[in-house]
Amino acid sequence: MARRYDSSTTTFSPEGRLHQVEYAIETINNSGACVGLLAKDGIVMASERRLTSGLLAPAKRSDKTFCLASHAACNVAGLTADANLLMDEARYQAGYYQYTYQEPIPIEQLVEIVCNYKQYYTQRGGLRPFGVAFLFGGYDEFHGFQLYQTDPSGNYSGWKATVIGANNQAGKSLLKSEYGKAGDDMNDEEERLPTVQEALQLAVKVLNKTMDGTGAAAVEKMELFTMTLDADQNVVHHILTKAETQAVIDSVEQETAAAGDA
Amino acid sequence: MARRYDSSTTTFSPEGRLHQVEYAIETINNSGACVGLLAKDGIVMASERRLTSGLLAPAKRSDKTFCLASHAACNVAGLTADANLLMDEARYQAGYYQYTYQEPIPIEQLVEIVCNYKQYYTQRGGLRPFGVAFLFGGYDEFHGFQLYQTDPSGNYSGWKATVIGANNQAGKSLLKSEYGKAGDDMNDEEERLPTVQEALQLAVKVLNKTMDGTGAAAVEKMELFTMTLDADQNVVHHILTKAETQAVIDSVEQETAAAGDA
Amino acid sequence: MARRYDSSTTTFSPEGRLHQVEYAIETINNSGACVGLLAKDGIVMASERRLTSGLLAPAKRSDKTFCLASHAACNVAGLTADANLLMDEARYQAGYYQYTYQEPIPIEQLVEIVCNYKQYYTQRGGLRPFGVAFLFGGYDEFHGFQLYQTDPSGNYSGWKATVIGANNQAGKSLLKSEYGKAGDDMNDEEERLPTVQEALQLAVKVLNKTMDGTGAAAVEKMELFTMTLDADQNVVHHILTKAETQAVIDSVEQETAAAGDA
Amino acid sequence: MARRYDSSTTTFSPEGRLHQVEYAIETINNSGACVGLLAKDGIVMASERRLTSGLLAPAKRSDKTFCLASHAACNVAGLTADANLLMDEARYQAGYYQYTYQEPIPIEQLVEIVCNYKQYYTQRGGLRPFGVAFLFGGYDEFHGFQLYQTDPSGNYSGWKATVIGANNQAGKSLLKSEYGKAGDDMNDEEERLPTVQEALQLAVKVLNKTMDGTGAAAVEKMELFTMTLDADQNVVHHILTKAETQAVIDSVEQETAAAGDA
Amino acid sequence: MARRYDSSTTTFSPEGRLHQVEYAIETINNSGACVGLLAKDGIVMASERRLTSGLLAPAKRSDKTFCLASHAACNVAGLTADANLLMDEARYQAGYYQYTYQEPIPIEQLVEIVCNYKQYYTQRGGLRPFGVAFLFGGYDEFHGFQLYQTDPSGNYSGWKATVIGANNQAGKSLLKSEYGKAGDDMNDEEERLPTVQEALQLAVKVLNKTMDGTGAAAVEKMELFTMTLDADQNVVHHILTKAETQAVIDSVEQETAAAGDA
Amino acid sequence: MARRYDSSTTTFSPEGRLHQVEYAIETINNSGACVGLLAKDGIVMASERRLTSGLLAPAKRSDKTFCLASHAACNVAGLTADANLLMDEARYQAGYYQYTYQEPIPIEQLVEIVCNYKQYYTQRGGLRPFGVAFLFGGYDEFHGFQLYQTDPSGNYSGWKATVIGANNQAGKSLLKSEYGKAGDDMNDEEERLPTVQEALQLAVKVLNKTMDGTGAAAVEKMELFTMTLDADQNVVHHILTKAETQAVIDSVEQETAAAGDA
Amino acid sequence: MARRYDSSTTTFSPEGRLHQVEYAIETINNSGACVGLLAKDGIVMASERRLTSGLLAPAKRSDKTFCLASHAACNVAGLTADANLLMDEARYQAGYYQYTYQEPIPIEQLVEIVCNYKQYYTQRGGLRPFGVAFLFGGYDEFHGFQLYQTDPSGNYSGWKATVIGANNQAGKSLLKSEYGKAGDDMNDEEERLPTVQEALQLAVKVLNKTMDGTGAAAVEKMELFTMTLDADQNVVHHILTKAETQAVIDSVEQETAAAGDA
Repeated sequence: MARRYDSSTTTFSPEGRLHQVEYAIETINNSGACVGLLAKDGIVMASERRLTSGLLAPAKRSDKTFCLASHAACNVAGLTADANLLMDEARYQAGYYQYTYQEPIPIEQLVEIVCNYKQYYTQRGGLRPFGVAFLFGGYDEFHGFQLYQTDPSGNYSGWKATVIGANNQAGKSLLKSEYGKAGDDMNDEEERLPTVQEALQLAVKVLNKTMDGTGAAAVEKMELFTMTLDADQNVVHHILTKAETQAVIDSVEQETAAAGDA
Repeated sequence: MARRYDSSTTTFSPEGRLHQVEYAIETINNSGACVGLLAKDGIVMASERRLTSGLLAPAKRSDKTFCLASHAACNVAGLTADANLLMDEARYQAGYYQYTYQEPIPIEQLVEIVCNYKQYYTQRGGLRPFGVAFLFGGYDEFHGFQLYQTDPSGNYSGWKATVIGANNQAGKSLLKSEYGKAGDDMNDEEERLPTVQEALQLAVKVLNKTMDGTGAAAVEKMELFTMTLDADQNVVHHILTKAETQAVIDSVEQETAAAGDA
Repeated sequence: MARRYDSSTTTFSPEGRLHQVEYAIETINNSGACVGLLAKDGIVMASERRLTSGLLAPAKRSDKTFCLASHAACNVAGLTADANLLMDEARYQAGYYQYTYQEPIPIEQLVEIVCNYKQYYTQRGGLRPFGVAFLFGGYDEFHGFQLYQTDPSGNYSGWKATVIGANNQAGKSLLKSEYGKAGDDMNDEEERLPTVQEALQLAVKVLNKTMDGTGAAAVEKMELFTMTLDADQNVVHHILTKAETQAVIDSVEQETAAAGDA
Repeated sequence: MARRYDSSTTTFSPEGRLHQVEYAIETINNSGACVGLLAKDGIVMASERRLTSGLLAPAKRSDKTFCLASHAACNVAGLTADANLLMDEARYQAGYYQYTYQEPIPIEQLVEIVCNYKQYYTQRGGLRPFGVAFLFGGYDEFHGFQLYQTDPSGNYSGWKATVIGANNQAGKSLLKSEYGKAGDDMNDEEERLPTVQEALQLAVKVLNKTMDGTGAAAVEKMELFTMTLDADQNVVHHILTKAETQAVIDSVEQETAAAGDA
Repeated sequence: MARRYDSSTTTFSPEGRLHQVEYAIETINNSGACVGLLAKDGIVMASERRLTSGLLAPAKRSDKTFCLASHAACNVAGLTADANLLMDEARYQAGYYQYTYQEPIPIEQLVEIVCNYKQYYTQRGGLRPFGVAFLFGGYDEFHGFQLYQTDPSGNYSGWKATVIGANNQAGKSLLKSEYGKAGDDMNDEEERLPTVQEALQLAVKVLNKTMDGTGAAAVEKMELFTMTLDADQNVVHHILTKAETQAVIDSVEQETAAAGDA
Repeated sequence: MARRYDSSTTTFSPEGRLHQVEYAIETINNSGACVGLLAKDGIVMASERRLTSGLLAPAKRSDKTFCLASHAACNVAGLTADANLLMDEARYQAGYYQYTYQEPIPIEQLVEIVCNYKQYYTQRGGLRPFGVAFLFGGYDEFHGFQLYQTDPSGNYSGWKATVIGANNQAGKSLLKSEYGKAGDDMNDEEERLPTVQEALQLAVKVLNKTMDGTGAAAVEKMELFTMTLDADQNVVHHILTKAETQAVIDSVEQETAAAGDA
Repeated sequence: MARRYDSSTTTFSPEGRLHQVEYAIETINNSGACVGLLAKDGIVMASERRLTSGLLAPAKRSDKTFCLASHAACNVAGLTADANLLMDEARYQAGYYQYTYQEPIPIEQLVEIVCNYKQYYTQRGGLRPFGVAFLFGGYDEFHGFQLYQTDPSGNYSGWKATVIGANNQAGKSLLKSEYGKAGDDMNDEEERLPTVQEALQLAVKVLNKTMDGTGAAAVEKMELFTMTLDADQNVVHHILTKAETQAVIDSVEQETAAAGDA
């Protein structure tokens, strides 16, 4: 029955649902997962690279991790072509704000601009929703490091740790049990933020779970990204090199093996 | 039969109904409830937080309670992405009025602007109604504290106490029997406005009823908001802290227990 | 068969009917009735308040009776959200005329502007007719007090006494037999206009009939409005207070009782 | 089969017909008839008033007979709300011509402007044809008194005598046999134009026929209009008063009675 | 099967046909025929008047024959309301050309402008083709007298003799056998253009054939038009009077009778 | 199954086809063929005249062969009304280029402009593709004589010899075997361009094949066109006269007869 | 079931797919393949020419390989008419950038502009996606030679070697096994880029595989293109001549024969 209401963004179903938005979310659930983690001293975002081939040219820039401004970056799950458009808009808005007010745009404001843009495409005929979800990571003076998740409806929310894309439910379960207890040997009740290093390990664990197939993650299928502050309090964007990524993967495997031993 | 008329905002059914508007209201009835109460010395608005997770970042600003101007705030039930758009419009209009006339916009005028905006989306093809309802609370010199409720059709009305969202019928029933008699020990016939403190307790009672599950409300599922005047007659917006909220919940439980005893 | 032609304002049925306009009229017939009466010395408009609750705030302004200009007012039956839009337009046009020509807009011209606006929505695709009917009451120097009724098609006509909304047929029947003979003790053949006081009583009688339920009208379910001239020939708008309304209701009941006795 | 082609103004049926235009004509055939007669010394237009009630206010201006300019008037059958729009356009065009060329607009040019406006609504999607037909009567120096009939397709033609609206076929039959022989006692072969007085009587006879019900016409159901020249060759518009109308009706009855006797 | 493709001007059928254009041509085939003939010394156009009634006013101008400019005229078959629009455009373009270049517009250029206008309505959604065909007759210095036929697709072609409208096939057959041999007593092989007088007779013969009913044509059902040059080489437009028309009809009957005798 | 995708230019079928464009090509295949041949010293284009009648006026200009500029011409197969529009655009663009750069537009650039215009109509809703194909012939200093063929999709390609319209497959087969070997008595392997005279004969042979019916071509059914350079290197456009055409046909027949004898 | 969602670009299927985009990709898979290879010292692009005929004129410019700027070129698979439009846009953007910043546009930026243009056509009603895929090859100072592939969704990615169009899967398989090992006699593990000469041979091998039919490639069915740097570091575009192409084909055959021998 619900089929009557599912081909238009301008029609509510009798249950008050917008099916097209739900189908767009389905698009995202079919694409590689992205994990985002707030750390004590930065942000970690990790994403699955689905398209891997020896014939691919080494990317000049990533198509999973987008730099939006010196203090903001973004991970993408879903239709990359749709994402490009929104990223261009986000960069423009960030630059325009900087130019106008001579200070970086607050992260949440940037997220809200992108989300209002998305919402517009859910309420008008002759348009389809954007088939893309984002993890926004950023830093500003007032709230420090922040992590936001958006969906095709234009909704967003702030998280300490979250997953979007394929098998995100499984990934979130893992996060619930592991995040805040990173470094398994701690038992204090108080939740505490992990370090960037711990967060990287947790991110790899989550990707191992969301990616189908063998337990050991292939280094070329993962893209790890950290945003930290340097000594001068400047924000540093860093996509981990192959060697660095392998190091994290190895440490995760050692730990797992150790846990298995224990 | 009615199915023929339900996929367009531009079609009346033979009974003279606009089904799309009714379905949009259904969206709202599926989302967390909001309670609004006019008190002698202020306004109380309470809302259910549906999305709760240990992984959520502490919100920088609430996505249930919106500050529109120094003298106006708003609670939201329904699609948050839709609400953002209307809130931006409301803030712009409030600021524009302030700038033009050098005095705060009267609350009802602000409500009407938002409602005309909503009505527009119910009468034209290629658009869907906004799937969101509001409780507007505000203060102005002429009418003091005021509370308005709006729905997706663009209709609005002023209330002393009302509920929107899930199980609002149950909530309204409770309000009918309790509001105006706050402080159960009073028996004077004359209706009187409760104090902010009494209103907070009543709001928690209503949320207890509209939220499914156990009788005892979890503090992290409730957002309590008060608007009052300080000594200089300035309007004070306040979202209760976890501790303050717990205190109200506790006092409600004590009272209920006492009533049970009696 | 007729079903083929009923979902568009831009399609005549083979019988030459516009079903969407007829369905919009159905909307009006489902909403509370309004009575309008031309009196010797003014105009009386009475309307049924459907939404009544102890929790409703005392209205700052009525949502059944709209003041359009110092010499014009309006009663509404149907979708209030639709009415707001048209009332704003009417106020603007009245103000614009006053500003341009330095004299009040003739009542019929004001009515025609609103009706042309309504007609527009019955002839174009992607729009629905306004689901609202009006009783316009006003005064101008040339024609004195006047009363007009409009419907969603954009049609209008001038009346001495009329009813719109729920059970308007029953109301009109009563008016036919009672209007012009107000003050039952008169038997002169010549029709004569009632006084405002007589008209108020007749309006209450009509509302008693159109409202379902018990014969005795509840004071909070009725809104009585008079437009008269004061000593300086200024137009006076007046919505009767609760006490005044009760007085009219009482006098009607006494009369009915007396008639029952006789 | 024809049903496939009847819901759009932009679709010819395989037989080359525009069904929506034909359905709009149906609208007109359901509304009160209008008779137009060219007389030697003027024009007579008579129309049926369908809506009659003791409660109707005496009309400030007729809604069947419209004055367009000092030398042009118009009778309407069909949707009055549609007619208002076209009448406003006609008045504007007549005034604009007068202003530009300092002489009255030729009648046929005025008719053609209105008809091109109507045609526009028969050839475009998202619009419906105007559900209204007109009898235009006017005077200009070149062609003297003229009478035109228009229909929803935008077609028009000049007539010496014609009927539009309900039962127009019956009315036209009567006109064919009576017009030009007015004053039954004449037998000259040559057609001659009736006087205004004779034309009024013939118009009443035709209305008697087109109106359902009893033979004797009720004075309040008829609106008689004459356009003549006064001594200074100025065009005089005149809607007959109740008394004058009754006089015409009486003379018709006497004549009929006399004919019955003879 | 073809039914799938026939309700839109923007859809080719699998056979590459545009059904709406073909249906528009059907409209024309249902309306009165027009005959056009190129004569040695002018052009003859004859058309059937379908609507005849003693009550019709003598036309101020014909609705079958349109004067476009001093050197161009046009006969119309199909929807007259559609034709008016195109004729206005043609007159405007002719006048604009005259004004700009100070010489009359070449006939074929005028025809092409009208045809491009028609073509536009066959290629876009939300429009229907014009349901009207034309015979354009005109004179210019370069090509002398010329005759063009257009159809709803926007196609046109030059003819020496042609028929449009009802029964045009029958009319064309007659033309093929008679045109160029006008004045039956001639037997020279060489085709020669008829005189205007001969062309008038041939036109009447063709109309006799295309009009249903009795062989003898009624004078009021025919409109005969000639375009010739006067002594000063000015183009003369002339619609034959009743008497002149009757004379032509009589001469045709005599000839036919003579032929019957022979 | 394919039927689902064939009524819109904006829908690909699951096989990736645009049915509307294919149906438009069908329109062309139903219309008279056009042959184009590149000769050593010019271009030859020949087309079938489908509409032939003794009543047709001698054409002032051809409706198969269009002159676009002094150095470019075009043959048309398909809907002539569609072609007119594109030809006007082509002429305008050619003139605009000449005016701007003071040199003739390169032929391929002209073709591409027309083709982009066509492509536009294949990608947007509410439009249909142009139902017309062209053979463009032209000369410019850089590439000498050139011949292009375009189709409704907006595709084009350069040819030495090609056929469009009815039976173009049969025509192309003939071209493949004959072109380059014109003057059957030659046997050298190297392809060589025919002379204009040889090309005219080959064109007639092809038309004989593509036209249905008897082998001998009727002179009035063929239009032969040559574009050559005169002594001053000016481009000469020439449509062959009846006599010239007959001469070519005769020579073809003689040759065929001779071949038959041999 | 999926059929419900496949005729609009503005509708997601319940699985989150955009069928129209997938069908557009099908168009590309039906057209001739294009191979792109990054070489040590340049770029090689090879494409299949589907339309081959002795009657085709020697192309003035290729319709498979487009020159976009002095440092960028493009190979096309799919609808050529669609490609022209995008190529014009690309040229304009490249020129505009050069003009504005006085340096060549970075290759990836050029690709992204074209892809955003494509994406636009996948998200709006009344449009269809572009049925065309590109291989962009270019050179800039920062990244040297680069090769990008785009698809109708607006997605793009950088490759060292890739195939689009018919049988691209088979072609990619071959590339995977051969690319990086060009010059079969090498066995070092390290991947290395082939020389332009080796890349040309590999490209011919791939085309041999993707083209149906006999193993030996016909020279006229292949278009080979190289982009290299000359001594002055200027980018050189070169489409191989017939002789050069034949030489490559011959060397491939020799090698294959040798491999067969070995």
